[in-house]
Amino acid sequence: MKLELNSPLDMHLHLRDGDMMKLVAPLSADSFAGAVIMPNLVPPVSSVEEVKSYKIRILEACGDRVFKPYMTAFFKNYTEEELTQLKDYIFGIKLYPAGATTNSDGGVKAMQEAEKTISIMQEMGIPLLVHGESHGFVMDREAEFLAVYRDLASRFPKLRICMEHITTASAVKLLDEFENLCATVTLQHLIITLDDVAGGMLRPHLFCKPIAKRPEDREALLQAALSGHSRLMFGSDSAPHPIHAKESCGCAAGVFTAPLALPRLTTLFEEHGCLDKLQGFVSDNACKLYGITPPVKKVTLIRESMEIPTAYEAHGQKVVPMDAGCVLPWRLA
Amino acid sequence: MKLELNSPLDMHLHLRDGDMMKLVAPLSADSFAGAVIMPNLVPPVSSVEEVKSYKIRILEACGDRVFKPYMTAFFKNYTEEELTQLKDYIFGIKLYPAGATTNSDGGVKAMQEAEKTISIMQEMGIPLLVHGESHGFVMDREAEFLAVYRDLASRFPKLRICMEHITTASAVKLLDEFENLCATVTLQHLIITLDDVAGGMLRPHLFCKPIAKRPEDREALLQAALSGHSRLMFGSDSAPHPIHAKESCGCAAGVFTAPLALPRLTTLFEEHGCLDKLQGFVSDNACKLYGITPPVKKVTLIRESMEIPTAYEAHGQKVVPMDAGCVLPWRLA
Repeated sequence: MKLELNSPLDMHLHLRDGDMMKLVAPLSADSFAGAVIMPNLVPPVSSVEEVKSYKIRILEACGDRVFKPYMTAFFKNYTEEELTQLKDYIFGIKLYPAGATTNSDGGVKAMQEAEKTISIMQEMGIPLLVHGESHGFVMDREAEFLAVYRDLASRFPKLRICMEHITTASAVKLLDEFENLCATVTLQHLIITLDDVAGGMLRPHLFCKPIAKRPEDREALLQAALSGHSRLMFGSDSAPHPIHAKESCGCAAGVFTAPLALPRLTTLFEEHGCLDKLQGFVSDNACKLYGITPPVKKVTLIRESMEIPTAYEAHGQKVVPMDAGCVLPWRLA
Repeated sequence: MKLELNSPLDMHLHLRDGDMMKLVAPLSADSFAGAVIMPNLVPPVSSVEEVKSYKIRILEACGDRVFKPYMTAFFKNYTEEELTQLKDYIFGIKLYPAGATTNSDGGVKAMQEAEKTISIMQEMGIPLLVHGESHGFVMDREAEFLAVYRDLASRFPKLRICMEHITTASAVKLLDEFENLCATVTLQHLIITLDDVAGGMLRPHLFCKPIAKRPEDREALLQAALSGHSRLMFGSDSAPHPIHAKESCGCAAGVFTAPLALPRLTTLFEEHGCLDKLQGFVSDNACKLYGITPPVKKVTLIRESMEIPTAYEAHGQKVVPMDAGCVLPWRLA
């Protein structure tokens, strides 16, 4: 049994840089025709030069694989002139509340400060991609941020706003209130809850931001994905950290899923009898929402078992994937 | 500046066995006049012989320190004859729902099965100590279990029931509904919330069961302790694991606090201007509730800085304490 996906896209991806990028970029390029590349390097990617050179490094790491990096810039108060320069080199601009996640210290401290730039982005048609979390209690952060999305969506009706890596039933609900809102959801948030992270043993390789939420949240996300919600897209938020940064006294946030994302998603959609909705979720929805045409790339999955490696290692880097050592019924051809 | 505590007690303590016990038992005996010793060894402590021999091993590990181990037996469906034999050797019986925490697989699967034994315990005046968590979603487990406490407290009005290591505002509230309910609370649950465990980096050394809850829960616990609630007692639930079982891909539940508990509690009560309530919290409340008379032991704290070691090591064991490397303004004399 085979499943052919046309130009699958990962609409939210962390490739890092240097040796880590050399390890993980080819793994994404083996599965996907393209990905939206997050800009939270140190320092963040925020100028034309940085975008261009990061893109070149990514393409070099991918070798001869067909893979289009949709570059983003780290949100700051860009002037109209800066945005005019950036526009042709980026897919969108990623806004982080300051301190919300890995390497986001330079993020936005108060949304009011960001409005002028957001207004110009709307005029120029540059999508706004948002890490939507408040600085409140960890289980409430996304829900508390929804008021910001509501405010942005109503005041900038022509702005394409993406709620990145949503994790709550409330965010799914909000998606239906505003046509200009769309969202990405990760693999892990369709599968796990806080119980999997901290209900039995504490499992650092399932720890990410936003943190996995309640069963009813997971269920709402899953139903939206399986039902083919047209404004919900797959974005892995695959976020590698070296093993020593995960299995230590202070574990960094991020789940590494890139190399198993498509086999695991195929398994999930098959389990629920919704394989026909997978193409939309991993590509078509994004193409329609953003008006993009990714490189032509057929990715074939076959129904043969795949044992997820206990770790991926190369270039002196070692990263443990989600579900390390588990066996999936599907694998990439 | 000095503070003298009379016979401080730790009403909920895990000492483990073997080399780990040899490392941690003296640390508890340096601070406390006695402690209620949890029975969740492998296999669990549940016969007179096991209780007696475990007690001897603990006393040997404590050397010449004044320290009384209040022994407990692991709940099972004891007959009247078994309870009659056990009675003189134990302080109480600890009930674990099966699988709720470390080494609790042999726990109670359905409360109905336990009622006959509980009824005999009531007649004999043996306290019932309970790990009160359901098998539900991790943040709801204690709240869901409160119905069981309510049921037990109303149906066994003469049974002394201790809600061990409570973590929620709802449990604090329940305490006031039934005279026969009392509770222990740990050091960490007076201080941390889930934000400290998983809101920034994931911090395995703050991971325990029940997991730390919401800010309003922590606040309710703290206010109950600081106000001198007469049925609330200090129970550290200090639960050492070897460092490799904490900083790994599956981190065991338990926070090791025994050697810093009194200095940290003193700091906390001083910060809130409630030092006068500390003696009750760490000893007098327990003595009155259970009618016990611990060994006479003055424990003096002095207001000089204590740097918490990054780890405690001996007998081939290495354990990382809470707040490793931090400095407290109080230390044991």
